[in-house]
Amino acid sequence: MTKQSGLHVAVVGATGAVGQQMIATLEERDFPIGKLTLLSSARSAGKKVLFKGEEVTVQEAKPESFEGVNIALFSAGGSISKELAPEAVKRGAIVVDNTSAFRMDENTPLVVPEVNEGDIKEHNGIIANPNCSTIQMVAALEPLRQEFGLQRVIVSTYQAVSGAGAVAIEELKEQSKAILNDEPFTPEVLPVKSEEKHYQIAFNAIPQIDKFQDNGFTFEEMKMINETKKIMHMPELEVAATCVRLPVVTGHSESVYIELEQDGVTVEQVKQLLAHAPGIVLQDDPANQVYPMPADCVGKREVFVGRIRKDLNKDNGFHMWVVSDNLLKGAAWNSVQIAESLIKLGLV
Amino acid sequence: MTKQSGLHVAVVGATGAVGQQMIATLEERDFPIGKLTLLSSARSAGKKVLFKGEEVTVQEAKPESFEGVNIALFSAGGSISKELAPEAVKRGAIVVDNTSAFRMDENTPLVVPEVNEGDIKEHNGIIANPNCSTIQMVAALEPLRQEFGLQRVIVSTYQAVSGAGAVAIEELKEQSKAILNDEPFTPEVLPVKSEEKHYQIAFNAIPQIDKFQDNGFTFEEMKMINETKKIMHMPELEVAATCVRLPVVTGHSESVYIELEQDGVTVEQVKQLLAHAPGIVLQDDPANQVYPMPADCVGKREVFVGRIRKDLNKDNGFHMWVVSDNLLKGAAWNSVQIAESLIKLGLV
Repeated sequence: MTKQSGLHVAVVGATGAVGQQMIATLEERDFPIGKLTLLSSARSAGKKVLFKGEEVTVQEAKPESFEGVNIALFSAGGSISKELAPEAVKRGAIVVDNTSAFRMDENTPLVVPEVNEGDIKEHNGIIANPNCSTIQMVAALEPLRQEFGLQRVIVSTYQAVSGAGAVAIEELKEQSKAILNDEPFTPEVLPVKSEEKHYQIAFNAIPQIDKFQDNGFTFEEMKMINETKKIMHMPELEVAATCVRLPVVTGHSESVYIELEQDGVTVEQVKQLLAHAPGIVLQDDPANQVYPMPADCVGKREVFVGRIRKDLNKDNGFHMWVVSDNLLKGAAWNSVQIAESLIKLGLV
Repeated sequence: MTKQSGLHVAVVGATGAVGQQMIATLEERDFPIGKLTLLSSARSAGKKVLFKGEEVTVQEAKPESFEGVNIALFSAGGSISKELAPEAVKRGAIVVDNTSAFRMDENTPLVVPEVNEGDIKEHNGIIANPNCSTIQMVAALEPLRQEFGLQRVIVSTYQAVSGAGAVAIEELKEQSKAILNDEPFTPEVLPVKSEEKHYQIAFNAIPQIDKFQDNGFTFEEMKMINETKKIMHMPELEVAATCVRLPVVTGHSESVYIELEQDGVTVEQVKQLLAHAPGIVLQDDPANQVYPMPADCVGKREVFVGRIRKDLNKDNGFHMWVVSDNLLKGAAWNSVQIAESLIKLGLV
């Protein structure tokens, strides 16, 4: 579609789980689009997608697809980004990349707008969108870092299958049906499609997301550790992560333990701070059983925080429970938000 | 059923999820039973249960039901235990109680045989079986405490619905079917049957198990904290817990972070120690995607440990993933194991 004024935006991976949410979010936010180009692999090219009531035909992504594009949102896997993001930049586009391809590249800012929007100014054509589980955590940590200082983070995640794409959602649903009907099934997608072994996800918990590294941590765990330090500009921050896949369709949850620099902070102070922090919704009222849950966060852009408790042993220790829609704040919304920041900062 | 020699064993709560596993475990272990008395509420009395090929009729539990009983295994809720366990003791029975009624009573030993079997000798008629999530954790921690000393534990749990009884299993299955078929449903059991609000458990995660305490922790979390200190005889141990209910039928998982007293311990040392520890099975081979999962532990009596990693910041810090069948080691098997210890120690 073309509109007289506005930006030329491309979405790469337009038919995927995140790509679909990107298109929906652009529409919902009334992003100033003059022309929308939807790109995908050859396999999905030709599909039609509705945007603001008009049909847009998905085209195969090629280097020349990016001629005239102002902003390109990539979410089609790391190898596609590695191949085509530089081609888009070469043609004048600013790329917001939702894969791990450039996240730890020192010339590429890694941005969660609530945390480090200013880093966008340092971009060299590509701005990386962090890993889903990292984004929601740093959004909750940053207000605490600013006010009280932050020394240490230990997180255990409860991650939804949609982080592994539409095929993983399908696998969870089909497997659940098979188990409930006492029928046989063969896992083929989770924990990692390209790995040798696949395990039941329905009514199970798999302590592996992405591949194992030599140090025994998974790549997902190392993403949380390294990206958190980069986004928060705290190379010395002590971060540890254990990442677990659950039979949840959408919505990542995190049990987060932190140690602040400052002693004597109260639960009430932490709650007040988070209640007024950008992009955060405080849901913390144990007496009325109010706390965040993945089933409640689906379709919402905020990060929900609850179960805030002071550690019983460490005066500077706090526990909390952080939940967000991994396809929105964890991916599509954070990418569109970066695009909005580009406009706000006058960079596009 | 009556056999010439052997003990008179009573199971209270014989028709419940744990009671059924107690009966199956007694049979599987070929426990030396002369007479088996199965007791329940008036509502379930009259049901027939198979034990070693013979039908046993369940009777209503009353004070006089315990006449002549040597060992009574209780798993029918705290109020039943409070009412009937003293009656059983009065009549000469030794009670192994799988409720929270007497766990923190200073005259009642709280026992995981791999950890503190000797405490059984101090009993005054009742021996308490710890909370399911506590048992599997302390079984994994004790070998480490013995060898390297233990300072600190931070655990986030991933708990199965069967811990909330047969009605919770039914709710998970019916809700899952309803969601997959796009049909309406009304949560009525989880997170806590007696609480005002009930939430969706299928394809969700609920960060509440048992009721909230004044300090913001749930009773389940405080059980893990207080019971761990009591069982390990470490009132000074720093323990923190966040307990979460998942759409898993059976099998609790735990993401456990520990700090040892000793510095310089290697992952290999921890693995070797756990590989040879009583009741523990080491499943830790990341290169071959080997780690414990709830779906694999169902029906097994051991505690499975994997994902052992040294913390990247603290030399004495380690992360691990601990999984066990919450109805067996977490309840029925630990109770029967205590009964076996009573025989072994010559106390019955």
